[in-house]
Amino acid sequence: MKFSSKIQRCGLSPIRKFYPYQVECQKKGIKIYHLNIGQPDIKTPESYFETVRNFSAPVLEYAPSPGIPVTIKKVEDYYRSIGMQIDPGDVVITAGGSEAITFSMEVILDDGDEILIPEPFYPNYKTFIYNTGADIVAIPTTAEEGYHYADLDRLEAAVTPNTRAIMFTNPGNPTGVVLTADERRLIADFAKKHDLWIIADEVYREFTYNGEALATMGTMEDIWDRLIIIDSVSKRFSACGARVGSVVCKNKEFQAEFMKLLQARLSVPTLDQLASASLYDVDPQYFKDVNEEYKKRRDTVYSELMKIPGIVCKEPQGAFYMMVKMPVDDSEKFLIWLLTEFNDNNETVMYAPAGGFYKTPGAGIDEMRIAYILNCDDLKRAIQLLGMGIAKYNAR
Amino acid sequence: MKFSSKIQRCGLSPIRKFYPYQVECQKKGIKIYHLNIGQPDIKTPESYFETVRNFSAPVLEYAPSPGIPVTIKKVEDYYRSIGMQIDPGDVVITAGGSEAITFSMEVILDDGDEILIPEPFYPNYKTFIYNTGADIVAIPTTAEEGYHYADLDRLEAAVTPNTRAIMFTNPGNPTGVVLTADERRLIADFAKKHDLWIIADEVYREFTYNGEALATMGTMEDIWDRLIIIDSVSKRFSACGARVGSVVCKNKEFQAEFMKLLQARLSVPTLDQLASASLYDVDPQYFKDVNEEYKKRRDTVYSELMKIPGIVCKEPQGAFYMMVKMPVDDSEKFLIWLLTEFNDNNETVMYAPAGGFYKTPGAGIDEMRIAYILNCDDLKRAIQLLGMGIAKYNAR
Repeated sequence: MKFSSKIQRCGLSPIRKFYPYQVECQKKGIKIYHLNIGQPDIKTPESYFETVRNFSAPVLEYAPSPGIPVTIKKVEDYYRSIGMQIDPGDVVITAGGSEAITFSMEVILDDGDEILIPEPFYPNYKTFIYNTGADIVAIPTTAEEGYHYADLDRLEAAVTPNTRAIMFTNPGNPTGVVLTADERRLIADFAKKHDLWIIADEVYREFTYNGEALATMGTMEDIWDRLIIIDSVSKRFSACGARVGSVVCKNKEFQAEFMKLLQARLSVPTLDQLASASLYDVDPQYFKDVNEEYKKRRDTVYSELMKIPGIVCKEPQGAFYMMVKMPVDDSEKFLIWLLTEFNDNNETVMYAPAGGFYKTPGAGIDEMRIAYILNCDDLKRAIQLLGMGIAKYNAR
Repeated sequence: MKFSSKIQRCGLSPIRKFYPYQVECQKKGIKIYHLNIGQPDIKTPESYFETVRNFSAPVLEYAPSPGIPVTIKKVEDYYRSIGMQIDPGDVVITAGGSEAITFSMEVILDDGDEILIPEPFYPNYKTFIYNTGADIVAIPTTAEEGYHYADLDRLEAAVTPNTRAIMFTNPGNPTGVVLTADERRLIADFAKKHDLWIIADEVYREFTYNGEALATMGTMEDIWDRLIIIDSVSKRFSACGARVGSVVCKNKEFQAEFMKLLQARLSVPTLDQLASASLYDVDPQYFKDVNEEYKKRRDTVYSELMKIPGIVCKEPQGAFYMMVKMPVDDSEKFLIWLLTEFNDNNETVMYAPAGGFYKTPGAGIDEMRIAYILNCDDLKRAIQLLGMGIAKYNAR
């Protein structure tokens, strides 16, 4: 049977393909410290489960296609609270940030179009984009420069007549890079100059560790016609399993086209939407506590990494990821070796090899992504295991 | 800003576009009998809400991309119970039947490909298919023949070198047509002859009213390599707001390609999946009661319709919809007239004009879709209002 040419360009998750090695390793009784997973360990606010428990309608009906009004209103108010002017119709609710991106790509990209994305980037972007028939043009970065990408020469060099959009995760997954106000302005001006859509994936907005105020591209009024903000409750409230996201866009034509896709898929689950609305009432102290915890983890990981000879990385400013260049030949081979040949007191460590986060073939071969979603003691041990592993691997 | 050519081929929901007239009508204090909505009024089994209330994990985590094992197992066992052999990996869980169809189309259809669908059909199929760059070729039917489509000459006439698949809803939305065993065999043989994928949207499987056994295309072993079954808990358990569906397909290559899309969108909501699993344990009496109720409604609607001069329709056999040809010039104009000019004792009626259910321009102009999801008294009154309306409209 024949399959579409587009699906054949897509790949399976580069993060999940090492799962069989994990299973074999665990069978031998070896404990694995997981730095490879993006699932936070932070408790979901209790209000989510309370709302769900209190639902009392006899029929679980479809919700309205653009979202349940109370959920939309909470997201609207949240954006107002961080300084963006919001009008009715600017916010729609989606099945996670994933659907928000998928549908945005379907609305703006045609076969042969190009979208600029700084690499390394979130691997699922590939599937979302390749399914439209468009292509990704990578904006190159380096470990030595801390993966910074907001550089005008680099952006200009990537533009072609087919460029339609620029997309980035800010704060960055997998890099932890956080754009400064000047850098956000630079990207906005660049997009205006070339008449590009801006897709700002801001799902990690709350997770910054150097005292930055909550920032969104949405406060720059002059890009409202071209700005598509991707958002989600997954990371903000540690509610990944809710699958409730949103798109914030003040371009009415965009929203009209987007609505066609929202109506076709009918609605986002009713209970999850109602429960997600309640999350926006969480005590501000929640974010302070969560961020303090992540900052400690970031500091732990970074200071432990700095003790390993040959490691190249800069201190990440946000999200809960970082990219690290290692003194090894191949981070996939090294990971498999860690899971099959190495252990220290029956313990080893797992990370995400960085190849899958790049568009450019061969790029990132000696790099890894770390997700710091373990407690500080475990993180310390995990990075120490990594250091031992590197030394032993290179001494084989 | 530029939009994709594909999204511009898609339209808004043809059912929802009369909503502004409804609002204006209600403002005048007129009661509307809704025959236009597919949202069942049947109570969702209590086990759904119990499962949700009993969830006690502290973190609402992502579920596995292909579905939570217990949910997959319930669907597998259900298919075994209706006579289909199921192996591991044949069933995956999707965000409703909508995602099941969307992803299936993305896996099998390329730009320029064609898919055969009997018309009238579920309007959202257009959006799912146009977004792949493929086109729909309609298999024509008539009200006079009760919208039956399993006719070899008609199927053969629609095939071109670009035909890749045939898709149908069985039992049918919007027609209520139920395929016989011979007709299912005919379609299977036709698909084999032309090497086509078969997409069998069987979400209304339980809703048949003439004593048919539960049927699926999946019991024909010789089409397992080409058969994609679409399913959902929405109608079966009156749980539309759960957005939990599934794809059943025994073609391993298909499942491997499908997995790319499942992984990219991460997961279906955790609570809804767990709760949906519990629905499959519902007492068989539930279906008996529900079907008895729908059968009564079907009989009420049909017998009342038969009293209206000039109406053309056959008794529908399944789902909870029927298509009706009316003695009016234009079913859209007539609906607007019913909502703006007509009332009897401050009551009027609303249906779905059939134009949006057709691919062929101008087809179905004097037809409507009725969803019989009201109680029998209300249905009787609704059809009587329709009859009064037709008489008065034509006498203007």
